[in-house]
Amino acid sequence: MPKSSFRGEIMPASPIRKLVPLSDKAKEQGIKVYHLNIGQPDLPTPAIALEALRNIDRTTLEYSPSDGIKSYREKLVEYYSRFDIHVAAEDIIVTTGGSEAVLFSFMSCLDSGDEIIVPEPAYANYMAFAISSGAIIKAIPSTIEEGFALPSVEKFEALITERTKGILICNPNNPSGYLYSSDEMNLIRDLVKKYDLFLFSDEVYREFCYSSERPYISSFHLEGIEENTILIDSVSKRYSECGIRIGALITKNSDVRKAVMKFCQARLSPPLIGQLIAEASLDAPAEYMENIYSEYVERRNFLIAGINRIPGCYSPMPAGAFYTMARLPVDDADKFCAWCLSDFSYQNQTIFMAPGSGFYTKPELGFNQVRIAYVLNKTDLAAALLVLEKALEAYPGRKL
Amino acid sequence: MPKSSFRGEIMPASPIRKLVPLSDKAKEQGIKVYHLNIGQPDLPTPAIALEALRNIDRTTLEYSPSDGIKSYREKLVEYYSRFDIHVAAEDIIVTTGGSEAVLFSFMSCLDSGDEIIVPEPAYANYMAFAISSGAIIKAIPSTIEEGFALPSVEKFEALITERTKGILICNPNNPSGYLYSSDEMNLIRDLVKKYDLFLFSDEVYREFCYSSERPYISSFHLEGIEENTILIDSVSKRYSECGIRIGALITKNSDVRKAVMKFCQARLSPPLIGQLIAEASLDAPAEYMENIYSEYVERRNFLIAGINRIPGCYSPMPAGAFYTMARLPVDDADKFCAWCLSDFSYQNQTIFMAPGSGFYTKPELGFNQVRIAYVLNKTDLAAALLVLEKALEAYPGRKL
Repeated sequence: MPKSSFRGEIMPASPIRKLVPLSDKAKEQGIKVYHLNIGQPDLPTPAIALEALRNIDRTTLEYSPSDGIKSYREKLVEYYSRFDIHVAAEDIIVTTGGSEAVLFSFMSCLDSGDEIIVPEPAYANYMAFAISSGAIIKAIPSTIEEGFALPSVEKFEALITERTKGILICNPNNPSGYLYSSDEMNLIRDLVKKYDLFLFSDEVYREFCYSSERPYISSFHLEGIEENTILIDSVSKRYSECGIRIGALITKNSDVRKAVMKFCQARLSPPLIGQLIAEASLDAPAEYMENIYSEYVERRNFLIAGINRIPGCYSPMPAGAFYTMARLPVDDADKFCAWCLSDFSYQNQTIFMAPGSGFYTKPELGFNQVRIAYVLNKTDLAAALLVLEKALEAYPGRKL
Repeated sequence: MPKSSFRGEIMPASPIRKLVPLSDKAKEQGIKVYHLNIGQPDLPTPAIALEALRNIDRTTLEYSPSDGIKSYREKLVEYYSRFDIHVAAEDIIVTTGGSEAVLFSFMSCLDSGDEIIVPEPAYANYMAFAISSGAIIKAIPSTIEEGFALPSVEKFEALITERTKGILICNPNNPSGYLYSSDEMNLIRDLVKKYDLFLFSDEVYREFCYSSERPYISSFHLEGIEENTILIDSVSKRYSECGIRIGALITKNSDVRKAVMKFCQARLSPPLIGQLIAEASLDAPAEYMENIYSEYVERRNFLIAGINRIPGCYSPMPAGAFYTMARLPVDDADKFCAWCLSDFSYQNQTIFMAPGSGFYTKPELGFNQVRIAYVLNKTDLAAALLVLEKALEAYPGRKL
């Protein structure tokens, strides 16, 4: 029997999904599992998008263009202009989820052995896509004590080598909820300019920025690096339509676009129906986004206060996205998260959290952290917080 | 401005899609373009699938499991059993199109520098996915003169090195329409067994086998290599629903499955709505497939006879799929295909064919060949054949 590849072996399992078998088992035993592990909002997809879905009137569900349906790309131009991001339809390539935009940008910009600098904790799948493309992630850890602020310029420069090809940021950040300040974004811009790097900028949570003092700054707002910037986007989170798998890769670098298009052609086309839904979603009324926004603000305030009330727990206040990295009084968050699913329940309920280790290249840096997504309604969040408190009381590896 | 990767540079543009800009231009000028280039059937998606689409009654379009919806995978078990392919639901991983199944099988089985042997002409995108994964394709050319029959075992063995990890076949074949005989399949089985190789077997056209003497043989019918086999599948062609992007990777090799699942988790999930449509498609009545089948048989007979009637043109009779590789009396099929779109029209119509060079690792082997897809109705095929004949008469690089 032939063996799988070394690449397949070193690929990390997703910290967000790897415990699914334990969760399935708990559910089979009739235990209610609160999913704090995954950024799967319980909020409705815009009505106008669901209506578009019901009204699809085609007899053949054919391929769409490799770079996406033109009318959708044109409509995205207007969407981005609302955020003062000025791009042309031909700068936009529609992808199968934001995931594919990350994969194709790595494939198109990085060769095997090339390096990118990524502030940590970071979205675990960046590592998976780096391994897929043979690129190497050089991590710069940020700390929970400093609220996950960007490390100093010296720490970045210490990592720059001849193989450094880019910096990757996620803003607002998954998993920490951190939102970069104007000073921090300028620091990144200066580095990108000085060393002529790519700036891979994942901005899928731009709608979810909660700080009045700290506005969202897109990488496309930074002057002088227009052709260095590759914006990664997705409609999944903002319209609560993760399942349609529609994202985008946006760049003014024509050389990169040309390479990306070859990867796009190889996979033929992004999902047709997803694009029809995404296009309709852009017409969601302002109240839709306002409601979603205030809901997340409430959930965030409720969750963070709740975490910080539990003895030994700590979470900074995230300024964006819908996650937080929290510190728990445990010996090993991987063990604790698995234990919650396999060995614990409170009033026939338990919680599914993503262990922090998977968001760091050095897993020990997240040994007592978990990522919690506040994608459940407040009643469920309250129940989940109670389960967390009771679990921590019962957990044999508790470390106060 | 930073440069794209070397990988991005050497990625081939799709021979099927690279001339799209010329075709768009012709259309802008009001010229009717017959698409013989792409396997995009004009036949309807099953009514039962379209009905399922209209009846989707969800308020949140959420992620599905990384390996696909369980009920769909279970239903596929029954579908495969109709072809005497016996697999369990856990052997099946749902992918975003057959393309992703190819990519993930390469990523999971091959490391950079590993080699796979592929009979040519071959589906151009295998090369693109090999480049994505750093694997090397060692091609064995089959010839139009021999009707694209499998080369001898000696030719295979001459290519086997320490880095050889697998053989890839597409059966029935895209682009040649060739269908492997029982002897040929046994030859492949013996090689796979002797050298403990992977057998990547793309069988997306299994419904389209037209020879009463030569039945479809799946790689899963071959005894003794059950754990070497990786079946690549897609619903795109059989249900005329290329746009939903649903495929599958099927293997009994648990080591490979484990690796594939990590790539699946990284991209989160295959399209939700596509899976709902694919699941419904499995219930298409027998008449649906019978009608589609007889339609393709008729189109094939009509097209091949038509090609062979044009002076200097030749096509073998394909026994499967819905393509043929035809030889044309031209100096350079790349030039001729481009010229048809940019410099020629007959009664305000022209044709879009895929140049043969893109289906060979040595492009010169296909210099006077084109791939023609018979996915248009007979009226359109007749018109396209007339345009081809007139184009060949007018083409300055004609070589009789």
